[in-house]
Amino acid sequence: MQLIDGKHVAATIRERIAKQVEQIIAAGGKRPHLAGVLVGHDGGSESYMASKVKACEQCGFTSSLIRHDSDVSQETLLQTISALNNDPDVDGFIVQLPLPRHIDEQRIIEAIDPRKDVDGFHPINVGRLSIGLPCFRSATPAGIMMLLEHYQIDTRGKHCVVVGRSNIVGKPIATLMLQKATPGNATVTVCHSATPDIAAITRQADILIAALGKPHFVSADMVKPGAVVIDVGTTRVEDPTSPRGWRLRGDVDFDNVAPMCSYITPVPGGVGPMTIVSLMHNTLLAATRQIYP
Amino acid sequence: MQLIDGKHVAATIRERIAKQVEQIIAAGGKRPHLAGVLVGHDGGSESYMASKVKACEQCGFTSSLIRHDSDVSQETLLQTISALNNDPDVDGFIVQLPLPRHIDEQRIIEAIDPRKDVDGFHPINVGRLSIGLPCFRSATPAGIMMLLEHYQIDTRGKHCVVVGRSNIVGKPIATLMLQKATPGNATVTVCHSATPDIAAITRQADILIAALGKPHFVSADMVKPGAVVIDVGTTRVEDPTSPRGWRLRGDVDFDNVAPMCSYITPVPGGVGPMTIVSLMHNTLLAATRQIYP
Repeated sequence: MQLIDGKHVAATIRERIAKQVEQIIAAGGKRPHLAGVLVGHDGGSESYMASKVKACEQCGFTSSLIRHDSDVSQETLLQTISALNNDPDVDGFIVQLPLPRHIDEQRIIEAIDPRKDVDGFHPINVGRLSIGLPCFRSATPAGIMMLLEHYQIDTRGKHCVVVGRSNIVGKPIATLMLQKATPGNATVTVCHSATPDIAAITRQADILIAALGKPHFVSADMVKPGAVVIDVGTTRVEDPTSPRGWRLRGDVDFDNVAPMCSYITPVPGGVGPMTIVSLMHNTLLAATRQIYP
Repeated sequence: MQLIDGKHVAATIRERIAKQVEQIIAAGGKRPHLAGVLVGHDGGSESYMASKVKACEQCGFTSSLIRHDSDVSQETLLQTISALNNDPDVDGFIVQLPLPRHIDEQRIIEAIDPRKDVDGFHPINVGRLSIGLPCFRSATPAGIMMLLEHYQIDTRGKHCVVVGRSNIVGKPIATLMLQKATPGNATVTVCHSATPDIAAITRQADILIAALGKPHFVSADMVKPGAVVIDVGTTRVEDPTSPRGWRLRGDVDFDNVAPMCSYITPVPGGVGPMTIVSLMHNTLLAATRQIYP
């Protein structure tokens, strides 16, 4: 069994990005600039945003953060987005989700200029992903693809089973694994809450991607020996022994599943660090106009 | 075994659309208008376009056809599209595919105003389909969903296997069958040319959708007894006994597969007629601004 070290891969890619940024600056170019919009003071959102700001520093990006109180009106938020769309110095920006209930999240996403939509949530980027055109790929699925690429895991013709059908992970990772590309070109099955016998499906998986957000849902008897297991789950569970009072738990019962796998991602330190580095990668693509000229 | 009579279902839906058009006219509204752009004189394209014009008549739509020679420049074609985008009388329009090689097909598709893109090929409509938002659904997958709905075929939690991953059938039908909706909510597998043992996958299908364009590819030993089989194939094969010299052949070996099925679509008369009526349905949605206000 080989552990997929997302922390290490993310660091490698961050360094590569930082070098490219140095070259851009040396050639008289502009420093890539990622902006973030944070509404309210949710602990999870604050910590994600802090990690993104830190990653920007490591990559040599300019970052800026626009904060709104949780009672911000949708109109004001749309004005912020419009200003970012029109700011020539901002190459890409993200609006940290989830948003408060009085805000129409989809409306906000669709207000973002697709050319600056480095989260890849705008329907144009989602559609281009499906069609197989250049686009900003949603960060978590893009990060998983980078891991498969880094470890040169053979995906062609393999049976990839995705558990979960969310718009930000399950659907786009299924789409990417299906494309005629490397990595990709897999036979892809998506199962979910309405699937009567998920274990019967997951046991067929050469590559199993768990993205349902239920801690330790995937047990050893659901995994085929020799499978590649990618754990996207990051549920916070109480842990009095941790200084923060909680820790992250994946969707896979790692201790029991790991010995059976050819490859497996741990939680934390697997997919998580890749998600942020994917966002950095998208920002560099935006700054260098590689997706939309 | 019950035969899924696409011709009958299409006629029923066409009548329903025609009634709605009568009501619109009676209320002083505008007659829905579908325009088509036809480049060159390919036999298949000519006949598809003729069927669409006929369906418009049956639904009470205005139809118009803009013809270009096969050596039309991309610039001229883009001008035609721009004119249709800006023509307030045109509710929706289609550009018959395939286009000659010197034309960038994707560029043409993306030039169509998504609000008039009744073929549902623009990335915005593809993306909205994936996200689960209101959109113009690609006609063939939408037609299949109408058939499943008409025959009240239970899809929830069923294993739906799609053979083929084209942008206009395989991917969007997989997306639709996956959505938390009725019909839909199925466990979905997509297999394709890189799948090593397609039969091992198709034999698990409660619902099998064949959309690969290989005549009689699906043989009886590839089908689970009691399965629902949807045949999207329409390959022209030579037939000297036919007055046209050819006939349509599906992807399924109908004679041998049909006796094992709970439901099956014939070719012709199954999915084919539904594709055109889906386009009419989309045009009505466009005319009544039900997708994009």
